[in-house]
Amino acid sequence: MPTGRKDDLNAPLRIDGLQYCNWSRANFEEMRAGGLSAIHATVSYHENFRETVRHLVDWRTRLRDHDDLIVLARDWADVERARSSGRTAIFLGLQTPMAVEDDLGLVEILYDLGVRFMQLTYNNQSLLGCGWMEREDSGVTRMGREVIKEMNRLGMAIDLSHAGERTALEAIALSQRPVVVSHANPRWLRDTARNVSKTLLRALAGGGGLLGLSLYPAHLPDGGATSLRGFGEMAAQAAEIIGVERLGIGSDLCRNQPDSVVRWMREGRWTRASSEPIAFPEQPEWFRSSADFPRLAEGLAAAGFQSEDIDLVLGGAWGAYLKDLKPA
Amino acid sequence: MPTGRKDDLNAPLRIDGLQYCNWSRANFEEMRAGGLSAIHATVSYHENFRETVRHLVDWRTRLRDHDDLIVLARDWADVERARSSGRTAIFLGLQTPMAVEDDLGLVEILYDLGVRFMQLTYNNQSLLGCGWMEREDSGVTRMGREVIKEMNRLGMAIDLSHAGERTALEAIALSQRPVVVSHANPRWLRDTARNVSKTLLRALAGGGGLLGLSLYPAHLPDGGATSLRGFGEMAAQAAEIIGVERLGIGSDLCRNQPDSVVRWMREGRWTRASSEPIAFPEQPEWFRSSADFPRLAEGLAAAGFQSEDIDLVLGGAWGAYLKDLKPA
Repeated sequence: MPTGRKDDLNAPLRIDGLQYCNWSRANFEEMRAGGLSAIHATVSYHENFRETVRHLVDWRTRLRDHDDLIVLARDWADVERARSSGRTAIFLGLQTPMAVEDDLGLVEILYDLGVRFMQLTYNNQSLLGCGWMEREDSGVTRMGREVIKEMNRLGMAIDLSHAGERTALEAIALSQRPVVVSHANPRWLRDTARNVSKTLLRALAGGGGLLGLSLYPAHLPDGGATSLRGFGEMAAQAAEIIGVERLGIGSDLCRNQPDSVVRWMREGRWTRASSEPIAFPEQPEWFRSSADFPRLAEGLAAAGFQSEDIDLVLGGAWGAYLKDLKPA
Repeated sequence: MPTGRKDDLNAPLRIDGLQYCNWSRANFEEMRAGGLSAIHATVSYHENFRETVRHLVDWRTRLRDHDDLIVLARDWADVERARSSGRTAIFLGLQTPMAVEDDLGLVEILYDLGVRFMQLTYNNQSLLGCGWMEREDSGVTRMGREVIKEMNRLGMAIDLSHAGERTALEAIALSQRPVVVSHANPRWLRDTARNVSKTLLRALAGGGGLLGLSLYPAHLPDGGATSLRGFGEMAAQAAEIIGVERLGIGSDLCRNQPDSVVRWMREGRWTRASSEPIAFPEQPEWFRSSADFPRLAEGLAAAGFQSEDIDLVLGGAWGAYLKDLKPA
């Protein structure tokens, strides 16, 4: 049952634009401890349509079993409902478009079942475009153009976090509505093609899009050793280009996940398992769970962010984006 | 665009409780010509979940392409909407539970995607119960009991048209809400286990359920040669047991279907195709399409039905049932 903490309605919005935890009541309690009004939760990676629907069934069970802590977010009214009852609204999303298979009609089906975010590509080539790890990125495909139009029509967020640069730039240009990079960091502070270049960040800003800053060690300037102030300074550099109104957090938190999940994310079913040991990197000591979310304010303040700007980065920017996420 | 024929709101309800046509604009125009306010349309037979979702996508396309003639019926309000705009409301249904596979969660998923009717069994044993063509009917299975509870909770009609007698009787007893035999006839007038016995009809009536009379030749007393008056007399005998308040039409109309569809319905994928020729039987000359629906009134009148009772059998009884078809 809702706890009905009315103070949530007056507190500033706190939103995490990407998590993929080993979902449990403990996670949801940490979200409440961190004051999160909403998160975007990953439902599946390489799972096909049928497998993704099974995960959606599991989410329905979770939402029933923990309805005192979480509520499904179909639109912004559900976030308001969550806030007025001291709960966290869950936006469901897909990190690859595998669930759509080669069937445009499945985009609407998945939307109707609650999916509100989808990445056009993960690390590899997809049917829609190219991921950042391929040798060559040939841009948005024929089907990709159709899916972008359909996501625009429905009001499903186009997420380019793992896209190749060319695919990402083309998708921004093709989309009639703002798109997001839900979880990535400035590439000039951590040089990996998984992070965003200044060119991409400018295009994203130009399209009215949003960047969620990642707290995953592989994306941070000094990995898990990055200081809280270092995080704040990274945010300041991103804000200089995209503006605080379009800057949020997408922590990429994989709380309590076993190391086998990293292998699944990286290797899916498209290669035989590599022999190299794969493990989750150690999180920075100042961000180990959703309960640490409020500490990000310290890092931003240390880097010179004003109070209103901190509120934008920790939730206000995502809030404005999600309020507009409705059918065209 | 809706034609906005306001007279539809004053005309008596006309509802067909089962059709499986080769859907086309011509079919939908025939429904309008026949004054049908609503029909129950079969989406799939032996198709699994993924295949059924593809059919649901096709229905969405049809509903968009012909939105001047048809509208999806999610609840009774959609029938009112259809009537006030001179259109036909389409209730979607499944003739077997194959789309649920072995996953109870898929019942709610299919409900959310618009499915409002499901048969627990077709001719053969299913995971939920037994069909009328098996040698021995062992009744409702363990999963069957779970699915009945779930359909009761959601407000999805339990249809026993192709069930074995024991499975049907057990399902009626287990269900907390009235169930239907959407398309079958009195067995004592056409002796096939596909039709309903007096025992079953009494149990159906006792549970507040509904029988839809079939116009499929194999279910009629004299096949395709059955007269319109003969149909009316059959209806009178059924009404004596179940009452006109619980008697409707489920024509089983397969308009414009190629003969390959009879083979699919009968043989699915569970046997190698038989060598015997299979063809749709010839319809009675007085019921070849939805446009003939109003003629049924003549047959009922010839058998002595009063005007109010004719209105119940041709739509009022189904209307009362469908008004109550909502979440518990």
